[in-house]
Order: sequence, then structure tokens, then C-alpha cells
Amino acid sequence: MNVITDVKAQIRDVADFPQEGIIFRDITTALKEPETLRTMIDYLCDRFKDEKIDYVAGIESRGFIFGMPMAYKLNAGFVPIRKPNKLPAATYSQSYELEYGTDTLEIHADALGPGARVLIVDDLLATGGTAEAACKLVKKTGVQLVGIAFLIELTALEGRKKLSCENIVSMLEY
Amino acid sequence: MNVITDVKAQIRDVADFPQEGIIFRDITTALKEPETLRTMIDYLCDRFKDEKIDYVAGIESRGFIFGMPMAYKLNAGFVPIRKPNKLPAATYSQSYELEYGTDTLEIHADALGPGARVLIVDDLLATGGTAEAACKLVKKTGVQLVGIAFLIELTALEGRKKLSCENIVSMLEY
Repeated sequence: MNVITDVKAQIRDVADFPQEGIIFRDITTALKEPETLRTMIDYLCDRFKDEKIDYVAGIESRGFIFGMPMAYKLNAGFVPIRKPNKLPAATYSQSYELEYGTDTLEIHADALGPGARVLIVDDLLATGGTAEAACKLVKKTGVQLVGIAFLIELTALEGRKKLSCENIVSMLEY
Repeated sequence: MNVITDVKAQIRDVADFPQEGIIFRDITTALKEPETLRTMIDYLCDRFKDEKIDYVAGIESRGFIFGMPMAYKLNAGFVPIRKPNKLPAATYSQSYELEYGTDTLEIHADALGPGARVLIVDDLLATGGTAEAACKLVKKTGVQLVGIAFLIELTALEGRKKLSCENIVSMLEY
């Protein structure tokens, strides 16, 4: 899997960010290399190219980074899943628990038609709390959740177990 | 200019958002249509296709939506301009004034090499405060600012006058 090794070599590890003891996988060093950028998007798109995706739903804000070029390449529409009070029209919302407190995601209530085939995209699968909320949110709109794509999965945190979706793809495992 | 009319027809006007008296130009209704999405990205890329862009710098978070597919299509790297404390490594920062208070943008100090040809991307040019800060920020890294691309320009606010860049492109004027 040379392509995986090549991309991993472009991810920068930053110690103690955002807090002590955490190794942050910094994707910005990979995004600034045109070839690596292309490799990441093409790899993830390739895994869903036969799935007839109608909409890519990207989770704010790093899910926008991967979701939009994937929508472009898969000939799908793009639907943003945003933090509260950013979307101007009527929304569905879904709260989820953080280590301390809760957070909420929103989607426009009229963004996705019933029966549409939807792919959720984010940069990172860690504990899975955010992605789980995004799945619940998307399902409220009556669509078919076809898959979830992440650039990076932190496998030890077992976030994948929280997600009720059969096709979960991550490009890079740590 | 049929392509302009077609895209404008997909932008939703939402009255009194985020506050009374403001008409919000909602791009989400355009992004969810695959053909409109493609038209917007292709139009903006076409204006810079001969400019040998090395990096597209997208302003968080709706600048990510347009910046990443443009980087993909222009065979450039992508560099995020983010809100404070989101980027893990050493940054340059630039503050700017809002109607009430100030805000700050950051970019990784090692993101852009001297002499690189950079295109800044955001969804909306209004008063120009954010874009002006992004221009100053990018110039701190020693690069050449080749252009600035917006999907929408609110021409009455004359934000364009604040930006010291010769090639400012917006697709839709209101």
C-alpha cells in the first residue's frame, strides 16, 4: 500500500495539541502538496464511485475540506452539516456529548430528499461522537445513508462501533 | 450570461438573517445541485487557469467549500486560513475590526514558501474586512498574491476597494 505510506509521510505529528499528552495529526502539511491532495481525494472517491451518491454531507469545518472536492468528483450535490445558528433556514438538529458538556449539529430540513443516497464525510474518526450525531441527523431527513468516509481513523478509540452504517471507510489508520 | 442567471436562480434569499433587515444569500440551495456546484467551481477556476497557482488559500469555513475543489482542479496545494487556536503549529496572525469588537485570522508560518503564487478564496465579499486581513496575512509569508476569488460580491458595500490585489473575481453580483 504505497499510496498510504506516501500520504502518511506528509501528515505532521504535533505533540501536546490541543492539550498535553495528545498527538495531533496535522493534515495541513498533506493538503499543501498538490499530488498528496489529489491522492487523498481520489482514494476516498474511488471507494464510493459505484455507489451512486446523490449527496455528500460534510461536517463543519474540516469535513468541508474533503467533502466538497468529493462531491465535485462524484457528480453529487454538497450539503453542509454545521454548528448551531449558522444555517439560515429551518433545520433539524442533533446534540451529542463531549468530555465536558454537549455540542449540537444542524442540517437544513429541506436539504435532502427522501430516498436520496447520502455519503457523510469528515477528516477524523476518533471517539465517534460527532459522526454518530451526523448519522442520526442525516437519517432524520428520511434518506439512505450509504457510507461514511474519513481521511484518518484512530482505531484504538473504537469510534467505528458507535456508527450504524455498513460502509465506513478511512484512508489512514493510527 | 446565462450561466450567471442559472446559478443566481439557485441561491435562496432568506430575510432577516442573521439579523433584522439583512437579506442573507443562502448558497446551500446551489451547492446541493450537482450541476450548479460544478458550474460555480468551473467558472471560478476558469478565471485563474492560466495563472499557474501554486496554492489556494481558503478562509474558514465557507472558503474551504470553494477553495478545496478549486485547488483540486487547478492542481494546486490547499492552505487553510483559520480562526484562532485551530492550527497546531507556529502561525502568523492578523486581527481585523468587526462592527463590534475584533476578530483574528491565522495561517501556518511554514505553509507558503517565498515567491509562491497564491489565490485567496472565500464565498462572499461584503465590507471586505475579512478578505483584507487574509491578504495581509498571506503577504506576511513572502508570497505573491495572484488573485482573490469570491462566489458572491455585495457591490454596494465596496469591499473591493479595501483589497490591494489587481485580480479580484466574483461570479455573482448583488
